[in-house]
Amino acid sequence: MYKRLTHIGIAVKDLGISGPVFARLFGRKEDHIEEVAEQRVRAMFFRIGEGGVELLEPTAAESPIAKFLEKRGEGVHHLSFEVDDIEKEIDRLTAEGFEMVDKVPRRGADGFRIAFLHPKSTNGVLIEISQKTD
Amino acid sequence: MYKRLTHIGIAVKDLGISGPVFARLFGRKEDHIEEVAEQRVRAMFFRIGEGGVELLEPTAAESPIAKFLEKRGEGVHHLSFEVDDIEKEIDRLTAEGFEMVDKVPRRGADGFRIAFLHPKSTNGVLIEISQKTD
Repeated sequence: MYKRLTHIGIAVKDLGISGPVFARLFGRKEDHIEEVAEQRVRAMFFRIGEGGVELLEPTAAESPIAKFLEKRGEGVHHLSFEVDDIEKEIDRLTAEGFEMVDKVPRRGADGFRIAFLHPKSTNGVLIEISQKTD
Repeated sequence: MYKRLTHIGIAVKDLGISGPVFARLFGRKEDHIEEVAEQRVRAMFFRIGEGGVELLEPTAAESPIAKFLEKRGEGVHHLSFEVDDIEKEIDRLTAEGFEMVDKVPRRGADGFRIAFLHPKSTNGVLIEISQKTD
Protein backbone atom coordinates (compact mmCIF):
# COMPACT_ATOMS: atom_id res chain seq x y z
CA MET A 1 0.00 0.00 0.00
CA TYR A 2 1.19 3.53 -0.86
CA LYS A 3 1.27 5.66 2.31
CA ARG A 4 2.63 9.02 1.14
CA LEU A 5 4.80 10.85 -1.34
CA THR A 6 8.07 10.90 0.60
CA HIS A 7 9.91 13.33 -1.65
CA ILE A 8 10.53 14.65 -5.12
CA GLY A 9 14.14 14.31 -6.20
CA ILE A 10 15.41 17.25 -8.27
CA ALA A 11 18.75 17.00 -10.08
CA VAL A 12 20.89 20.13 -9.72
CA LYS A 13 24.43 20.92 -10.80
CA ASP A 14 25.45 22.88 -7.72
CA LEU A 15 23.79 22.84 -4.30
CA GLY A 16 25.64 26.07 -3.51
CA ILE A 17 23.55 27.81 -6.20
CA SER A 18 20.27 25.83 -6.11
CA GLY A 19 20.07 25.41 -2.32
CA PRO A 20 19.61 29.16 -1.72
CA VAL A 21 17.08 29.35 -4.62
CA PHE A 22 14.84 26.72 -3.03
CA ALA A 23 15.37 28.25 0.43
CA ARG A 24 14.04 31.56 -0.96
CA LEU A 25 11.20 29.71 -2.73
CA PHE A 26 10.04 27.94 0.44
CA GLY A 27 10.85 30.89 2.68
CA ARG A 28 13.17 28.94 4.99
CA LYS A 29 16.41 27.01 5.43
CA GLU A 30 16.84 23.36 4.42
CA ASP A 31 16.19 20.63 7.02
CA HIS A 32 19.29 18.59 6.39
CA ILE A 33 22.13 17.77 4.00
CA GLU A 34 23.34 14.21 3.57
CA GLU A 35 25.93 12.51 1.40
CA VAL A 36 24.77 9.15 0.00
CA ALA A 37 28.09 7.56 -0.93
CA GLU A 38 26.46 4.56 -2.65
CA GLN A 39 24.61 6.81 -5.10
CA ARG A 40 27.40 9.40 -5.33
CA VAL A 41 25.16 12.30 -4.51
CA ARG A 42 24.86 15.02 -1.94
CA ALA A 43 21.20 15.52 -1.00
CA MET A 44 19.64 18.65 0.50
CA PHE A 45 16.21 18.09 1.99
CA PHE A 46 13.38 20.59 2.50
CA ARG A 47 10.43 19.18 4.46
CA ILE A 48 6.96 20.30 3.26
CA GLY A 49 3.99 18.77 5.09
CA GLU A 50 4.38 14.97 5.26
CA GLY A 51 6.87 14.95 2.34
CA GLY A 52 9.43 17.23 0.81
CA VAL A 53 11.86 18.17 -1.89
CA GLU A 54 15.32 16.60 -2.18
CA LEU A 55 17.91 18.47 -4.26
CA LEU A 56 20.50 16.05 -5.66
CA GLU A 57 24.00 17.13 -6.66
CA PRO A 58 26.39 14.54 -8.14
CA THR A 59 29.67 13.97 -6.26
CA ALA A 60 31.33 12.02 -9.10
CA ALA A 61 31.17 11.89 -12.90
CA GLU A 62 29.79 8.32 -12.81
CA SER A 63 26.90 9.31 -10.52
CA PRO A 64 23.47 8.53 -12.01
CA ILE A 65 22.61 12.20 -11.34
CA ALA A 66 25.64 13.39 -13.37
CA LYS A 67 24.42 11.24 -16.28
CA PHE A 68 20.88 12.59 -15.93
CA LEU A 69 22.16 16.20 -15.93
CA GLU A 70 24.19 15.54 -19.05
CA LYS A 71 21.22 14.07 -20.93
CA ARG A 72 18.29 16.10 -19.60
CA GLY A 73 19.63 19.08 -17.69
CA GLU A 74 18.40 20.20 -14.28
CA GLY A 75 14.88 19.24 -13.24
CA VAL A 76 12.72 16.57 -11.61
CA HIS A 77 14.67 13.31 -11.43
CA HIS A 78 12.36 10.97 -9.50
CA LEU A 79 9.30 10.65 -7.26
CA SER A 80 9.58 8.60 -4.08
CA PHE A 81 6.59 6.96 -2.42
CA GLU A 82 6.61 5.29 0.97
CA VAL A 83 4.99 1.85 1.01
CA ASP A 84 4.16 -0.30 4.01
CA ASP A 85 5.93 -3.46 2.78
CA ILE A 86 8.60 -2.97 0.10
CA GLU A 87 9.23 -6.68 -0.66
CA LYS A 88 5.50 -7.31 -1.07
CA GLU A 89 5.20 -4.23 -3.30
CA ILE A 90 8.15 -5.33 -5.51
CA ASP A 91 6.42 -8.72 -5.95
CA ARG A 92 3.06 -7.08 -6.74
CA LEU A 93 4.57 -4.62 -9.25
CA THR A 94 6.57 -7.38 -10.97
CA ALA A 95 3.40 -9.51 -11.24
CA GLU A 96 1.62 -6.43 -12.72
CA GLY A 97 4.26 -6.31 -15.47
CA PHE A 98 6.37 -3.37 -14.22
CA GLU A 99 10.11 -3.65 -14.73
CA MET A 100 12.03 -3.14 -11.46
CA VAL A 101 15.53 -1.63 -11.64
CA ASP A 102 16.02 -3.04 -8.12
CA LYS A 103 14.52 -6.48 -7.59
CA VAL A 104 15.92 -6.42 -4.06
CA PRO A 105 15.72 -3.25 -1.90
CA ARG A 106 18.93 -1.30 -1.31
CA ARG A 107 19.97 1.39 1.14
CA GLY A 108 18.83 4.94 0.35
CA ALA A 109 19.12 8.25 2.20
CA ASP A 110 17.58 9.02 5.58
CA GLY A 111 17.24 5.42 6.87
CA PHE A 112 15.07 4.14 4.02
CA ARG A 113 15.33 0.96 1.98
CA ILE A 114 14.51 1.81 -1.62
CA ALA A 115 13.79 0.23 -5.01
CA PHE A 116 13.46 1.97 -8.39
CA LEU A 117 11.06 1.06 -11.20
CA HIS A 118 12.23 1.39 -14.78
CA PRO A 119 10.80 4.68 -16.18
CA LYS A 120 9.89 3.06 -19.50
CA SER A 121 7.07 1.22 -17.70
CA THR A 122 5.71 4.42 -16.08
CA ASN A 123 5.30 7.09 -18.79
CA GLY A 124 8.89 8.31 -18.54
CA VAL A 125 8.58 9.08 -14.81
CA LEU A 126 11.27 7.52 -12.60
CA ILE A 127 9.55 6.15 -9.52
CA GLU A 128 11.14 4.96 -6.29
CA ILE A 129 9.32 3.04 -3.61
CA SER A 130 10.72 3.13 -0.11
CA GLN A 131 10.21 1.75 3.37
CA LYS A 132 11.60 3.20 6.58
CA THR A 133 13.93 0.80 8.37
CA ASP A 134 13.18 0.28 12.06
CA MET B 1 3.72 29.37 4.29
CA TYR B 2 3.91 26.09 2.38
CA LYS B 3 1.47 23.57 3.88
CA ARG B 4 1.81 20.49 1.67
CA LEU B 5 2.63 19.14 -1.76
CA THR B 6 -0.87 19.06 -3.23
CA HIS B 7 0.01 17.07 -6.35
CA ILE B 8 2.51 16.25 -9.04
CA GLY B 9 1.18 16.97 -12.52
CA ILE B 10 2.28 14.42 -15.13
CA ALA B 11 1.73 15.13 -18.84
CA VAL B 12 0.37 12.11 -20.75
CA LYS B 13 -0.80 11.70 -24.32
CA ASP B 14 -3.73 9.43 -23.60
CA LEU B 15 -5.50 8.92 -20.27
CA GLY B 16 -7.00 5.74 -21.70
CA ILE B 17 -3.50 4.24 -21.80
CA SER B 18 -1.75 5.97 -18.88
CA GLY B 19 -4.70 5.88 -16.46
CA PRO B 20 -4.65 2.06 -16.22
CA VAL B 21 -0.82 2.07 -15.91
CA PHE B 22 -0.94 4.33 -12.84
CA ALA B 23 -3.93 2.40 -11.45
CA ARG B 24 -1.79 -0.78 -11.63
CA LEU B 25 1.19 1.10 -10.15
CA PHE B 26 -0.77 2.36 -7.14
CA GLY B 27 -2.87 -0.80 -6.86
CA ARG B 28 -6.21 0.99 -7.10
CA LYS B 29 -8.62 3.04 -9.20
CA GLU B 30 -8.29 6.82 -9.65
CA ASP B 31 -10.18 9.13 -7.27
CA HIS B 32 -11.66 11.44 -9.84
CA ILE B 33 -11.51 12.74 -13.40
CA GLU B 34 -12.13 16.41 -14.17
CA GLU B 35 -12.03 18.54 -17.28
CA VAL B 36 -10.44 21.97 -16.74
CA ALA B 37 -11.76 23.90 -19.74
CA GLU B 38 -9.64 26.97 -19.05
CA GLN B 39 -6.40 24.95 -19.28
CA ARG B 40 -7.69 22.61 -22.02
CA VAL B 41 -6.85 19.46 -20.11
CA ARG B 42 -8.56 16.43 -18.73
CA ALA B 43 -7.09 15.56 -15.31
CA MET B 44 -7.15 12.18 -13.58
CA PHE B 45 -6.34 12.30 -9.89
CA PHE B 46 -4.90 9.57 -7.64
CA ARG B 47 -4.81 10.53 -3.96
CA ILE B 48 -1.72 9.34 -2.01
CA GLY B 49 -1.51 10.44 1.63
CA GLU B 50 -2.12 14.20 1.91
CA GLY B 51 -1.26 14.75 -1.79
CA GLY B 52 -1.43 12.86 -5.02
CA VAL B 53 -0.65 12.43 -8.69
CA GLU B 54 -2.57 14.26 -11.42
CA LEU B 55 -2.32 12.87 -14.95
CA LEU B 56 -2.91 15.60 -17.52
CA GLU B 57 -4.13 14.90 -21.06
CA PRO B 58 -4.52 17.80 -23.51
CA THR B 59 -8.01 18.34 -24.96
CA ALA B 60 -6.86 20.75 -27.70
CA ALA B 61 -3.72 21.36 -29.77
CA GLU B 62 -3.21 24.78 -28.16
CA SER B 63 -3.27 23.32 -24.63
CA PRO B 64 -0.07 24.07 -22.65
CA ILE B 65 0.15 20.29 -22.04
CA ALA B 66 0.05 19.59 -25.81
CA LYS B 67 2.97 22.00 -26.25
CA PHE B 68 4.88 20.39 -23.38
CA LEU B 69 4.35 16.90 -24.88
CA GLU B 70 5.62 18.11 -28.24
CA LYS B 71 8.80 19.61 -26.77
CA ARG B 72 9.60 17.24 -23.89
CA GLY B 73 7.47 14.13 -24.24
CA GLU B 74 5.52 12.49 -21.42
CA GLY B 75 6.71 13.07 -17.86
CA VAL B 76 6.52 15.36 -14.84
CA HIS B 77 5.00 18.70 -15.86
CA HIS B 78 4.68 20.60 -12.57
CA LEU B 79 4.68 20.43 -8.78
CA SER B 80 1.83 22.04 -6.89
CA PHE B 81 2.18 23.26 -3.30
CA GLU B 82 -0.66 24.47 -1.12
CA VAL B 83 0.04 27.75 0.66
CA ASP B 84 -2.02 29.45 3.37
CA ASP B 85 -2.28 32.85 1.64
CA ILE B 86 -1.67 32.90 -2.13
CA GLU B 87 -1.70 36.71 -2.59
CA LYS B 88 0.82 37.15 0.22
CA GLU B 89 2.97 34.36 -1.24
CA ILE B 90 2.93 35.94 -4.74
CA ASP B 91 4.09 39.23 -3.17
CA ARG B 92 6.82 37.49 -1.14
CA LEU B 93 8.09 35.49 -4.16
CA THR B 94 8.11 38.56 -6.40
CA ALA B 95 10.07 40.49 -3.74
CA GLU B 96 12.51 37.52 -3.58
CA GLY B 97 13.15 37.93 -7.33
CA PHE B 98 11.09 35.00 -8.66
CA GLU B 99 9.26 35.59 -11.91
CA MET B 100 5.53 34.81 -11.62
CA VAL B 101 3.69 33.56 -14.72
CA ASP B 102 0.48 34.53 -12.88
CA LYS B 103 0.73 37.76 -10.93
CA VAL B 104 -2.93 37.33 -9.99
CA PRO B 105 -4.33 33.91 -8.96
CA ARG B 106 -6.59 32.12 -11.45
CA ARG B 107 -8.99 29.19 -11.22
CA GLY B 108 -7.45 25.70 -11.22
CA ALA B 109 -8.91 22.22 -10.80
CA ASP B 110 -10.65 20.93 -7.68
CA GLY B 111 -11.70 24.30 -6.18
CA PHE B 112 -8.22 25.78 -5.95
CA ARG B 113 -6.94 29.22 -6.95
CA ILE B 114 -3.51 28.79 -8.50
CA ALA B 115 -0.47 30.74 -9.70
CA PHE B 116 2.54 29.44 -11.64
CA LEU B 117 6.16 30.53 -11.23
CA HIS B 118 8.36 30.76 -14.30
CA PRO B 119 10.55 27.59 -14.41
CA LYS B 120 13.64 29.55 -15.41
CA SER B 121 13.76 30.96 -11.87
CA THR B 122 13.47 27.50 -10.25
CA ASN B 123 16.06 25.17 -11.84
CA GLY B 124 13.82 24.17 -14.73
CA VAL B 125 11.05 22.91 -12.40
CA LEU B 126 7.60 24.34 -13.09
CA ILE B 127 6.04 25.18 -9.72
CA GLU B 128 2.43 26.05 -8.94
CA ILE B 129 1.25 27.49 -5.65
CA SER B 130 -2.38 27.04 -4.75
CA GLN B 131 -4.95 27.91 -2.14
CA LYS B 132 -8.27 26.17 -1.56
CA THR B 133 -11.25 28.46 -2.09
CA ASP B 134 -13.79 28.46 0.73
